[in-house]
Amino acid sequence: MKQHQVLKIREPVENQTANIAVLGAGGLGMAAVKMLSRKKEMKLTAIADKTGYVIDLEGINPGLLENKKPGDIGNRTDDAITEIIKNSGNFDGIFIALPNLTNEFIPDVVSRFADHGYSGVMVDALKRSQAVEAIFGLDDRLRDAGITYITGAGATPGLLTCAAAIAANSFMEVTGVDINFGVGVANWESYRATIREDIAHLEGFNLDRAANMTCAEIKEELDKRKGILHLSNMEHADDVLLERAGVVSQEKVKVGGVVDTKNPKKPVSTTMTLTGRTFDGAVSSHRFILGDETTMAANVVGPALGWMKAGLEFHARRIYGVFGSAEIMPRFVQ
Amino acid sequence: MKQHQVLKIREPVENQTANIAVLGAGGLGMAAVKMLSRKKEMKLTAIADKTGYVIDLEGINPGLLENKKPGDIGNRTDDAITEIIKNSGNFDGIFIALPNLTNEFIPDVVSRFADHGYSGVMVDALKRSQAVEAIFGLDDRLRDAGITYITGAGATPGLLTCAAAIAANSFMEVTGVDINFGVGVANWESYRATIREDIAHLEGFNLDRAANMTCAEIKEELDKRKGILHLSNMEHADDVLLERAGVVSQEKVKVGGVVDTKNPKKPVSTTMTLTGRTFDGAVSSHRFILGDETTMAANVVGPALGWMKAGLEFHARRIYGVFGSAEIMPRFVQ
Repeated sequence: MKQHQVLKIREPVENQTANIAVLGAGGLGMAAVKMLSRKKEMKLTAIADKTGYVIDLEGINPGLLENKKPGDIGNRTDDAITEIIKNSGNFDGIFIALPNLTNEFIPDVVSRFADHGYSGVMVDALKRSQAVEAIFGLDDRLRDAGITYITGAGATPGLLTCAAAIAANSFMEVTGVDINFGVGVANWESYRATIREDIAHLEGFNLDRAANMTCAEIKEELDKRKGILHLSNMEHADDVLLERAGVVSQEKVKVGGVVDTKNPKKPVSTTMTLTGRTFDGAVSSHRFILGDETTMAANVVGPALGWMKAGLEFHARRIYGVFGSAEIMPRFVQ
Repeated sequence: MKQHQVLKIREPVENQTANIAVLGAGGLGMAAVKMLSRKKEMKLTAIADKTGYVIDLEGINPGLLENKKPGDIGNRTDDAITEIIKNSGNFDGIFIALPNLTNEFIPDVVSRFADHGYSGVMVDALKRSQAVEAIFGLDDRLRDAGITYITGAGATPGLLTCAAAIAANSFMEVTGVDINFGVGVANWESYRATIREDIAHLEGFNLDRAANMTCAEIKEELDKRKGILHLSNMEHADDVLLERAGVVSQEKVKVGGVVDTKNPKKPVSTTMTLTGRTFDGAVSSHRFILGDETTMAANVVGPALGWMKAGLEFHARRIYGVFGSAEIMPRFVQ
């Protein structure tokens, strides 16, 4: 096994609580704060966003973050990520819940952790195929660094992609995977980055254009559509992840959905349908349907922490490198 | 890492076809023969049942087994398992598809492999909680032997249990798992052992009584019920496996179903429903629904081979011992 520089001051062992740092304090980051506060196996020890950061190795009280930003309760800086990188030896796992409007941003952040000598677990909830592919491009580098990295580890890609990879086993050949999601949020401001990325997928829009829209312009666009975004044939990394897992070739994976930005009720039930041919010639479909009452935050961050636990287990066994969410099973965190 | 006696003459490496031995040539064993004949990553190199056994390291032509038993095309013996054990150093993986009317039978067979010095991968499709618990009792012994063993690796337990373990991640707390299966077989004679075990779960029956029934008595019992068996609150290892994976305590897992022994059409859609409470207090259920056109054989043996691949990957990384099917993800075999 390749030797790597060891910056880590502690190794996760059984019955020890893993120190988790969360990058980002938007809807997903704050859901992670709340979930981690109720887990025995993990604790929130750092959170950072554009306002600043807070680090507390004893565990951050989630109450402090109620209606507050990391910079309000910790240290104000516009370069909080650098501070987390400097202190990264304290963290067993990093959950990346940052907005990702360019495909290079998160791979760049990850590279900086590796360059600094970080050697723990990292999990992202990236969505676009190209962003996930850029992370796979770091495989050798992260393996050398001793980092165990799981990419596309949210809901879709993530929970639904993994369900597809499991469902595939009943079939000799998978002929198609169709993911149709429903998302409802009470107001788009709570999930600015996510909704902005959804807008980038609409016809006539792209990442640049969505990134440069003012909040007023976003609001206007949403109002024009009565708050409802219909998305189809999205560039979603479920395709890359399922191909990498050997399940089906990219072009047979279709992702679309309906997002209601003014109503927390889901406009449609989120469903993954995998169709294939069995050894005895039958053509059939397995389906995985998410409960309508579960929010995007529950379905993204819960699985992300599940993959964090799986990553910690792999890391303890010195299994390093980049894994897709369709290659490794998220493990329920207690 | 503990040293163990090495009998294995070959290690699975990438792009090498794994040699698989199948124990049992009933409905499940024969489905494995057909599936393996179409896989690049694995080949059938041995099959054994009560009629005898055949071993061919070049790969067994599945056509030879059409309407034939292993003893018809290979060597007749009433102790075929012993012959497979003697030759076990040739096999990367063993799929156990034997009838299991006593809880001790399969653990005894497995122990004999370990005693002989076998150090590869073993996968079973055991159903009863007590049988799976007996396999977990072999954990230390199999770890010392260098065996990677995956138990409960069929459809239920197996595919549906694993889907439940993944679905759990959206929730802070799982309040219940309900598995309701539908099975249809054109005639019970093709799945004697499976149907006999189902009868043992009926009210007024038990394993001993079912084991001692003649085929005529089974037929009479089935006729009395118009071929339909209604099963509820079954002793099914989904409970043990989900508790071991840390998802939910045993008593919250319920398994039941309807088996039509005279009609290949499923009487109900096989559905796993996992109910839980999310971090934001919502109570909801995720569902995993198998396509009605998929047979029990496809849903048991396909996943079993998927776990075989996962086991081969773990084994290559020197990860040994017993794993439940809710702890490790089946990997689609190409």
